[in-house]
Amino acid sequence: MRYHDTPAFPRGFRCASKNCGLKPAANDLTLFASDVDAAAAAVFTRNKFPGAPITLGRETIRGRRLRGIVANSRYSNVATGPIGLEHARRMAQAAARELETVPEHVLVSSTGVIGVELPIDLIERGIHGMATDLQSDPLVGAQGIMTTDTHPKALSISVGNATITWVAKGSGMIEPNMATMLSYIFTDAAIDADALDGLLRRAVDVSFNMLSVDSDTSTSDTCAILANGRAGAVDPSAFEDALSAGCVRMTEILARDGEGAKHLLRAIVRDAANASDAKQIAKSLVNSPLIKTMVFGADPNVGRLLMAVGKCFECDIPPESTHAWINGHNVVRGGRRLEFDDATVRQALTSEVVDIEVSVGSGAASATAYGCDLTQGYIDENAAYYSS
Amino acid sequence: MRYHDTPAFPRGFRCASKNCGLKPAANDLTLFASDVDAAAAAVFTRNKFPGAPITLGRETIRGRRLRGIVANSRYSNVATGPIGLEHARRMAQAAARELETVPEHVLVSSTGVIGVELPIDLIERGIHGMATDLQSDPLVGAQGIMTTDTHPKALSISVGNATITWVAKGSGMIEPNMATMLSYIFTDAAIDADALDGLLRRAVDVSFNMLSVDSDTSTSDTCAILANGRAGAVDPSAFEDALSAGCVRMTEILARDGEGAKHLLRAIVRDAANASDAKQIAKSLVNSPLIKTMVFGADPNVGRLLMAVGKCFECDIPPESTHAWINGHNVVRGGRRLEFDDATVRQALTSEVVDIEVSVGSGAASATAYGCDLTQGYIDENAAYYSS
Repeated sequence: MRYHDTPAFPRGFRCASKNCGLKPAANDLTLFASDVDAAAAAVFTRNKFPGAPITLGRETIRGRRLRGIVANSRYSNVATGPIGLEHARRMAQAAARELETVPEHVLVSSTGVIGVELPIDLIERGIHGMATDLQSDPLVGAQGIMTTDTHPKALSISVGNATITWVAKGSGMIEPNMATMLSYIFTDAAIDADALDGLLRRAVDVSFNMLSVDSDTSTSDTCAILANGRAGAVDPSAFEDALSAGCVRMTEILARDGEGAKHLLRAIVRDAANASDAKQIAKSLVNSPLIKTMVFGADPNVGRLLMAVGKCFECDIPPESTHAWINGHNVVRGGRRLEFDDATVRQALTSEVVDIEVSVGSGAASATAYGCDLTQGYIDENAAYYSS
Repeated sequence: MRYHDTPAFPRGFRCASKNCGLKPAANDLTLFASDVDAAAAAVFTRNKFPGAPITLGRETIRGRRLRGIVANSRYSNVATGPIGLEHARRMAQAAARELETVPEHVLVSSTGVIGVELPIDLIERGIHGMATDLQSDPLVGAQGIMTTDTHPKALSISVGNATITWVAKGSGMIEPNMATMLSYIFTDAAIDADALDGLLRRAVDVSFNMLSVDSDTSTSDTCAILANGRAGAVDPSAFEDALSAGCVRMTEILARDGEGAKHLLRAIVRDAANASDAKQIAKSLVNSPLIKTMVFGADPNVGRLLMAVGKCFECDIPPESTHAWINGHNVVRGGRRLEFDDATVRQALTSEVVDIEVSVGSGAASATAYGCDLTQGYIDENAAYYSS
């Protein structure tokens, strides 16, 4: 397994992106294409008000085969009623015509403002001709699906003869719980769709599902994987390791680019009674506004750390066996604040990556959650965001 | 039932406050006293790392009688180990000597920095002589227990011949779950301790337990009520109504004074399948950073409203019967964004009190949660807060 210096598509995948008039000038329409039908799996948001593309996507993915993905930004096609579902179907149809396949083999995504009808005519007109623009650079697609992201997000890993490439976006309204905002994974490894589904769910469980920028779960979260088989079979366990590692790495990239964020915050919980406790305590740490502002302020506030662990009322947390570290510096032993050199820990907190490790001492389960600090930038961005 | 224009203690209660050297100049030590033993009840934080005063308080309140309360600010006496509990007991002993009672009849509270040993000598010396300074103005005590509060918090209600007076503090690390930071309730009504316990728990359940400034549950939350009987018996149902109304009003005062807050945010959920669903949805709304920044930015962002309701995955929320209002303006009908006059709703959102009402249409249960907007002020205050 080897990370590429520059992301590149696996054999047989390409993408195109353009402005079709939804935004003033930036790209707002993106098409991902496989030369052949690919085995596919996907997970979607658990929000009770899913967008029309999610409703359609759940139907589409039952076929377990995809030829392409079409995504627009600016409008999310959420809370738009029956006309919204019709618009999502028309997007799939237009892309299917372009890719010479059937609409059932096209996944649709829309993100942006909620509650506004899609300008479907602009989108249909825009999709027309995109097949002739397909390119081999995944950053073109990553750029095309950006919203409040500060940079396009793609990465590639080689595993045996095959490549896995991630293209993702998202920096606010993120605590996915079943997937992140949009994360597309492409591979030329030959893997059947059922196996792919299991692999995706296990990888998402330790990565995107452990990500939280702001504890708010979007109505549009989608994570899909396409495997076109062009590189033949790969060692299953090497592939699973690479898939998992890449999903974790992309999760870290998304967390670090959380709205207004200056730091990647990782909460590593060890020795918990069970996996559920470990996850809950790790999530409590990355979601606590007082921990997030502490990381921004680079202040080793041990009280907040104990508070955020201790508010997991239902977890088994014996204070006397609870220890904690901030970037390797032991700050809590047996539930009590240790004397430590304040200046040293303060300096450690200025690192771009801040690891808070907690050992609960009630078992052998562990979990890591991914988040970011909370800064004025988040407030500025979200108080000023115009909804219509 | 009648609110007083100016808060005043019920018969037989007084307080004193002073600087004993924990802070540079501001008052840091407060004593509340009843002339006679009062029936008492209390609820405490559910945090797994409770402060020593909470551990002692749980023991004290089993006696169901209190003569007084002693509280210091600046240091919370949390995560301080066995010496912390010894210090809490010494505070109770010092106050008991002063009030000519036993330590078992004195409730102790400490709030402030976590993990630092109490300067117990300063506190003991400070308590000595406070009995001679006892005054009849509850604002003296409210001032004495303030930390990041911007104003002292007290209110009084007359019910029949009796008075109920609240003295409280708290503006950050607040999602109490069993009580708020510190909220003391004094009454001269005659009520036995068992009845008082039930009354307090029911009142807290719809008030302080529905409050969230930042979703962070403190290690020091305490809510106690003292009834000294000096006004004789009162009509039980009138008393319960007044107790509940005053707890809700104090909850609103605390929420409005949340760190950095400019608005009181109330989330009113109706027609939910059951009380648990109603509470969870209401809490989800007041805890959502995207709702909180939307209220700060006065933007009628209907998408965020649906998102925050819809992320209650386990609740029964049929989109087609979900309707929502912002300060009385209908913005969602049947899970879809309504066309509304943007300028009008934007104007309504500039009101100091913002009510978000959601009707879920799956039952008859309702709940109200209390919170505030999220502003740069919260970040400034908590990124700069120095922990040691």
